[in-house]
Amino acid sequence: MLEKIDLNRKLPKSEYKSLIGELERRIGKLQRDARKLKIPVVVVFEGWDAAGKGTLINNLILALDPRGFKVYPTNAPTQEERLRPWLWRFWIRTPARGRLAIFDRSWYGKVLVERVDEIVPKEEWTQAYSDINSFERHLSDDQIVLVKFLLHIDKKEQKKRFEKLLANKSTAWKVTSDDKRHHRQYNLYYRAFEEMLERTGTEWAPWTVIEAHDKKFATIKMLTTLIDALERRIAGSNSQGKEGHHDAPVKESAGPLDLSTSILNSVDLSENLPRDRYSSASKKLGKRLLELEHEVFLKRVPVIIVYEGWDAAGKGGNIRRLVQGMDPRGYEVVPFAAPTQEEKDHHYMWRFWRVLPKAGHITVFDRSWYGRVLVERVEGFCSEEQWSRAYREINETEQQWCDFGAVVIKFWLQIDQAEQLRRFEARQRTPHKQWKITDEDWRNREKWEDYSAAVEEMLLKTSTTYAPWTIVEANDKPFARIKAMKTVVQALQRRL
Amino acid sequence: MLEKIDLNRKLPKSEYKSLIGELERRIGKLQRDARKLKIPVVVVFEGWDAAGKGTLINNLILALDPRGFKVYPTNAPTQEERLRPWLWRFWIRTPARGRLAIFDRSWYGKVLVERVDEIVPKEEWTQAYSDINSFERHLSDDQIVLVKFLLHIDKKEQKKRFEKLLANKSTAWKVTSDDKRHHRQYNLYYRAFEEMLERTGTEWAPWTVIEAHDKKFATIKMLTTLIDALERRIAGSNSQGKEGHHDAPVKESAGPLDLSTSILNSVDLSENLPRDRYSSASKKLGKRLLELEHEVFLKRVPVIIVYEGWDAAGKGGNIRRLVQGMDPRGYEVVPFAAPTQEEKDHHYMWRFWRVLPKAGHITVFDRSWYGRVLVERVEGFCSEEQWSRAYREINETEQQWCDFGAVVIKFWLQIDQAEQLRRFEARQRTPHKQWKITDEDWRNREKWEDYSAAVEEMLLKTSTTYAPWTIVEANDKPFARIKAMKTVVQALQRRL
Repeated sequence: MLEKIDLNRKLPKSEYKSLIGELERRIGKLQRDARKLKIPVVVVFEGWDAAGKGTLINNLILALDPRGFKVYPTNAPTQEERLRPWLWRFWIRTPARGRLAIFDRSWYGKVLVERVDEIVPKEEWTQAYSDINSFERHLSDDQIVLVKFLLHIDKKEQKKRFEKLLANKSTAWKVTSDDKRHHRQYNLYYRAFEEMLERTGTEWAPWTVIEAHDKKFATIKMLTTLIDALERRIAGSNSQGKEGHHDAPVKESAGPLDLSTSILNSVDLSENLPRDRYSSASKKLGKRLLELEHEVFLKRVPVIIVYEGWDAAGKGGNIRRLVQGMDPRGYEVVPFAAPTQEEKDHHYMWRFWRVLPKAGHITVFDRSWYGRVLVERVEGFCSEEQWSRAYREINETEQQWCDFGAVVIKFWLQIDQAEQLRRFEARQRTPHKQWKITDEDWRNREKWEDYSAAVEEMLLKTSTTYAPWTIVEANDKPFARIKAMKTVVQALQRRL
Repeated sequence: MLEKIDLNRKLPKSEYKSLIGELERRIGKLQRDARKLKIPVVVVFEGWDAAGKGTLINNLILALDPRGFKVYPTNAPTQEERLRPWLWRFWIRTPARGRLAIFDRSWYGKVLVERVDEIVPKEEWTQAYSDINSFERHLSDDQIVLVKFLLHIDKKEQKKRFEKLLANKSTAWKVTSDDKRHHRQYNLYYRAFEEMLERTGTEWAPWTVIEAHDKKFATIKMLTTLIDALERRIAGSNSQGKEGHHDAPVKESAGPLDLSTSILNSVDLSENLPRDRYSSASKKLGKRLLELEHEVFLKRVPVIIVYEGWDAAGKGGNIRRLVQGMDPRGYEVVPFAAPTQEEKDHHYMWRFWRVLPKAGHITVFDRSWYGRVLVERVEGFCSEEQWSRAYREINETEQQWCDFGAVVIKFWLQIDQAEQLRRFEARQRTPHKQWKITDEDWRNREKWEDYSAAVEEMLLKTSTTYAPWTIVEANDKPFARIKAMKTVVQALQRRL
């Protein structure tokens, strides 16, 4: 998930100033409301050394009534704490109803520092995931609002920050030998963070990754996320006791400012490939794909390839080029449109399970189970509860497939609105392509923003180490096709 | 859990006849209602070889409209099935809305025969528990009613049935060499069943253990449980879309007949101990307890001892005798009454976590977290949703404690109503004991039946391999004290 995050989000000082006062007032008000409604709140701050946890926590508590919260810094467990089950020290610090507990690092130490530094054996930190999920579920079922922040910076930024601290005598002491070692272990931590997000990003206790290069941006995003979670719960408390979901993407509570992760915005759509290079590359890759298809068959590896993307993003042509040189006995392309009545009468995953490739075969899904969190979400074909739950359901399912040995490759074909318009109009002008463009396509186009938000959340929540998304820059079709072919070749080579 | 089951439940033929017709009519009606409401239903039959799965399934489908259900016998996976992720063959057989799927053996084969026969390695069947829980949760979240039966018979009964089959030429072929081997492996299977119940008995897909020595009793219990689950769901569907819980104990839908497991009824309360034997035994055990307390300290084992039982069952005196000879620096007795305001303001487990013994120490809980599923349930201090959830919460929590190395010993002190009355009256007659008896005690006594049902369900759902309940026959106090002391001695010896 982290690789998809655009870390260069920034907020000009003037904009920060215009927002912060109002957010502080709102969070203060919400804290009072939560106290009145007896809603307990747990806020967790995790993240890289020097990512700015201290600053953010400070910016948060400055806005709060000090009688209503407590900050718990988490260090290595003391001797007393070691004598109890490991979650003991966190259980006894859970907040009373109406109060806030802020954890500066937390129970996640078990799957981060204790894992990376090999302080605990593998069985122990693997077990910790399920202990954590139980713990958080117990709290959430008891109506505690759980908000978890992961402050993310890249290795270069971390280095810069350490160097700045070291350059000044009065701050140099802050950089410990542990910090230096952790910096060298950046990649190990990165992997641990990734796995943590995958395994513990639940509906009841979702993670919010904060792009922390710019502290002003980070502060605004942190406050807005917390405000959003509290407002949802309070709205839920007021409406017939139904629980509010606090796992939806951050709404634009901060006014016109968009704080959601902007994976799509940072895609470079100017990528393109000259015709001659396309032709030689596609020939070469096509040959390699045929070889790999045979190897996959011999080694009994099932391969699942998913195509999702905007209308007119070129899925059909891309798929055709991918399978063009392959042996048809080894692969199958299955297109999915609206479900039939029989399919509607089953769980939404059922129709996809039915055509799952058997070991040694390749299935290309032209649209897929991701419809649940795209079209079904945006068009209201399923409830918020249903699509919110689907991220985890999908991750769990794909994990099972990968456990079985499957390779799962997922493409999101990205084009911009202007390009889509050009293609729609071209379709309408060209008689033999008119069938491809319907009123529905135009209607969907009007909901571009809603779909964008859904795509962003999908990419963030379902890009896992075992089944990552590949975003394909698809304004230029030749480039898109080569990128997809290359990605498949690489994924299969890695697996074989 | 299984050891607590009274297998000798029986139903006279006349009573069976008077019930079966009405149950068949009701299940037929419910099937039609479920079809109309588009409620899909999955029924799973697991159990010992020769436990009578075939008979029960037959008795079920005779009452059903054949157009609305399908029976899936589950054998070893075929070659085609082996080429897909292991749950594939079950996923594609999930029922359409409004239909019933009946599984004669099921996905539990992975943690039963495939485990016991070592067909799959340990990692695989351990992983299967979480795959199964995800699978069932996905189905349940999609509004599928899941009813799972485990047909239980003891080893002797199984042998008798095999011998009967073998004695007759026309049935002898039914007893395969696999069956014979499984019979020899009775203890291995027993353990596998126990673990299966513990790990997959969830709120969304609870197990019902059926005492299967008597097929008439088994049939009635199976039908009644299924009727109950369907009625609850249909009632839920009719009341503003709220999901019905189908995990509560079987109500007396079969009229005056009590079908719930009757753990308490089979307790032999005539157990007693002559005064002289009591005195020598308690002296000996007391000495041993002191030694063990020191060993526990040296080996840093935390020990958690829970006392629950009826009012006036003698918890206080029993605890006093237990700790009488022990070193007070190593143990603590913590009594729990109604929670304080501060305690109410936290999760119900919080006050118990706070006093959890540290490694090397012993804490005796005079009443405990089981209040959630006893007094809080019966008196309506928490919602059905809350106490239904609590069984799993408690099991998960105790599992964490045991993972940490704790020994968890739980006593239920059982007396009968007549004995309680004698003790209440004695308390009222004896001036220095009058403080012990309050109006509340009398009120609780009136709810004996409700409490009994709660106790039964608690014993069944929270007696785990890692933290089993010990039922103490407490009509005779000396007997009860010695049994508790012995149990603690044995549990500590086993651990050390």
